[in-house]
Amino acid sequence: MAIHTNIICRVEIDKSKITFGEIATAINGAGGDIIAVDVIQAGKLKTIRDITVQLNIEMHQKLIHAIQSLEGIHIIHVSDSTFLAHLGGKIQVVPKVPIKNREDLSRVYTPGVARVCTAIVEDPTKVYTLTSKRNTVAVVTDGTAVLGLGDIGPEAAMPVMEGKAMLFKQLADVDAFPICLQTKDTEEIINIVKGISPTFGGINLEDISSPRCFEIERRLQEELNIPVFHDDQHGTAVVLLAGLINALRLVEKSIRDIKVVVCGVGAAGAACIEMLLVAGVRNLVAVDRCGALVPNTTYDHPTLDRIASKTNPDYEEGSLSEVISGADVFIGVSGPGVLKAEDIKRMAKDPIVFAMANPEPEIDPEVAEPLVRVLATGRSDFPNQINNVLCFPGIFRGALDCRATRINEEMKLAAARAIASIVTDAELNEHYIIPSIFNDKVVSSVREAVMEAAVKSGVAKRIPRELQSHEELTAIT
Amino acid sequence: MAIHTNIICRVEIDKSKITFGEIATAINGAGGDIIAVDVIQAGKLKTIRDITVQLNIEMHQKLIHAIQSLEGIHIIHVSDSTFLAHLGGKIQVVPKVPIKNREDLSRVYTPGVARVCTAIVEDPTKVYTLTSKRNTVAVVTDGTAVLGLGDIGPEAAMPVMEGKAMLFKQLADVDAFPICLQTKDTEEIINIVKGISPTFGGINLEDISSPRCFEIERRLQEELNIPVFHDDQHGTAVVLLAGLINALRLVEKSIRDIKVVVCGVGAAGAACIEMLLVAGVRNLVAVDRCGALVPNTTYDHPTLDRIASKTNPDYEEGSLSEVISGADVFIGVSGPGVLKAEDIKRMAKDPIVFAMANPEPEIDPEVAEPLVRVLATGRSDFPNQINNVLCFPGIFRGALDCRATRINEEMKLAAARAIASIVTDAELNEHYIIPSIFNDKVVSSVREAVMEAAVKSGVAKRIPRELQSHEELTAIT
Repeated sequence: MAIHTNIICRVEIDKSKITFGEIATAINGAGGDIIAVDVIQAGKLKTIRDITVQLNIEMHQKLIHAIQSLEGIHIIHVSDSTFLAHLGGKIQVVPKVPIKNREDLSRVYTPGVARVCTAIVEDPTKVYTLTSKRNTVAVVTDGTAVLGLGDIGPEAAMPVMEGKAMLFKQLADVDAFPICLQTKDTEEIINIVKGISPTFGGINLEDISSPRCFEIERRLQEELNIPVFHDDQHGTAVVLLAGLINALRLVEKSIRDIKVVVCGVGAAGAACIEMLLVAGVRNLVAVDRCGALVPNTTYDHPTLDRIASKTNPDYEEGSLSEVISGADVFIGVSGPGVLKAEDIKRMAKDPIVFAMANPEPEIDPEVAEPLVRVLATGRSDFPNQINNVLCFPGIFRGALDCRATRINEEMKLAAARAIASIVTDAELNEHYIIPSIFNDKVVSSVREAVMEAAVKSGVAKRIPRELQSHEELTAIT
Repeated sequence: MAIHTNIICRVEIDKSKITFGEIATAINGAGGDIIAVDVIQAGKLKTIRDITVQLNIEMHQKLIHAIQSLEGIHIIHVSDSTFLAHLGGKIQVVPKVPIKNREDLSRVYTPGVARVCTAIVEDPTKVYTLTSKRNTVAVVTDGTAVLGLGDIGPEAAMPVMEGKAMLFKQLADVDAFPICLQTKDTEEIINIVKGISPTFGGINLEDISSPRCFEIERRLQEELNIPVFHDDQHGTAVVLLAGLINALRLVEKSIRDIKVVVCGVGAAGAACIEMLLVAGVRNLVAVDRCGALVPNTTYDHPTLDRIASKTNPDYEEGSLSEVISGADVFIGVSGPGVLKAEDIKRMAKDPIVFAMANPEPEIDPEVAEPLVRVLATGRSDFPNQINNVLCFPGIFRGALDCRATRINEEMKLAAARAIASIVTDAELNEHYIIPSIFNDKVVSSVREAVMEAAVKSGVAKRIPRELQSHEELTAIT
């Protein structure tokens, strides 16, 4: 599929050496359509213009080269629509009400604000009603595992964190703010996040590489009384489980009876395994680079030891190709090309394959599709995209609204079931096991299920009005 | 002056015991005007209502007491307009553009965002053009010196920091975000702020108590390449100097010839002294609780030693009442009641008094006014309010726009002169030495002056377009 984009070339043109007609001919010759020209600065000899060109994204370099090779024209800079959307950043911090006059100022700032501060001193729980804390989540990263790009550092991670903040606000009205850290040290990260925690009602850890992410999340969860959630782990696990619940509805198998092979035991893999076990999977074989993890073996990280001890009840040994024999479900959270067509052929009837490596799945979807009953990937250009965006807005919305002190297994399970339940029996089919991220039922369903689970499991500090009985309402309001 | 406010009382009424008419009579009797009644929940025996009452703010307790003493009515809670303005917090984090469909999502989030991240990896300065960093300031506090309230902790400080963020955005379009720290340890604060610095284009330290604030600011400024500015110190100093420049215009004295007594050598006092020396004051006597600071004496903090060594050229000793003799200017950044009418009478002709302690000045303004030529305070209910709001929005706007690596003395001096210059010769008088914070020339004047000073003093990493000559513009754009 050809993807078109607009680019804007700011060029300085020496009018004695080249005409605009010659430039236009060169741009057209390189596959570009000129859609606008703006004069930025006009002079006797030289002029600066912004030329907006529509083109196939793959022709980008060719077009720039074609312009550069002309005499009398100098490219000052080139922007495309993706870059333009990022100019100056994608988020802003705005007042909820304007300060129009002295009276407004006295209310929201000095001297009136002093009474509000004093009220919080007297009753610390009022920080949740009288400040932004109750609706604000830190999106915290050290930039070590960003998208498929790896360790690109905190500055380069900013655009992803800002994008995430946009989604938080737009989908769930959560105020999320990027915190990009200039350290990769586990203890320092823990200290910093604890240090800044008074501002926030929740912490969304993001793109922190494994195995540090396990310790960071565990410790923060223990030492803070606000929810801490590493989205790359648990967001993926929740959405995967939602998809699996619906895939199993389709093939009419029970989650307690299936054999699942999970390939990849990094951050996401470990979380998916934990989630599947909580959801009732009994026969799960985890596979890492060295093959299947087997109980009573010692591995080089406690996370692997823990997973090995809880899985693989039949002590299956060997490579992915060996242990996949008879599996009902393959879950890939590893890398491209790990799963072969032959492997799928050794699976049980109605194979379910979740090949979630991004951007290149564990098996080419074109190859896998004829061999499986249900295929899901992390990509938006195939059906059944396993996308964390289905989870994090609603799960935080729910956790914030009931002031949950943590996001526990019950809440994640409830979120997965809520996402799955949006696909009705009538809608459910091989190409539609998971709702679209633009489905507006997702956030409200996840929110409600998460609040209920939080209240039932005793981690909610506030009973939201819609979950209160009439008597409770009168008593608590 | 009677200040009126609206309060909302949510009450549960036992209809068998009291009528609404009886309640209304009691409220009116206590000085309240009922302006609205909303039924929240109606039952056979009991009803819950929100009664909105307008009243003189000083009658608040009396009114609540009057309601409480009635039989058959129970107050569930009481809100007033200040508290209502704080409900749920005062700021939010919003996307600059909506994400309407898959194409938008691909641009601002995955997969498109990956190219933007890569561009920053390849050229780290692009974090300033492609992310919110260039416009974002952290408002950092540990909650130890909040308003006149003292050490109230990070949570209770949130409403002040949010108010500040509102002002930053509304007055100067700066995106400011509160960071309230759960530590008072100097080294930890330094580490945390350094740790989170990749997200921010500047750091506004706020309400951090002295003497820790000196070390924290100095170290952060040394170790970060973004501006760090402790507003309680330098904001106060800049606005004070602006006021003093205009007061001196009025009395026609030169700043190089005056004698200034500064009372209070805390965070704000130390900064005011430094600023006055930079501005050209040669005869300045600093007074703390123990009397005048004298050169070649050893004090219990290096800041006091440094100030003593730079001031008091005549080695004057003794109390405030002694050293104020012959002073042209008194500057109070201490506490209520420190300055006596007799002290002012010992000052030189045309005494200038800045009594900035808040909420109670160093001398009752009513007492001081007949004795002085110019009086300024920190209060909004007297003329000549010395309010930091005149400084911080414009100084950060300027620093961000030229990507200054620090806010140096030249920039602060330029800011003070810019604020002073807004009051024209025709306007200048004893009751108008400083513009209103709602004067819309303030931010743009300060911004421009600060950028010019930054460029001249070599701390600007970017030459803003309006400061470029035609040739530079062509070369740099």
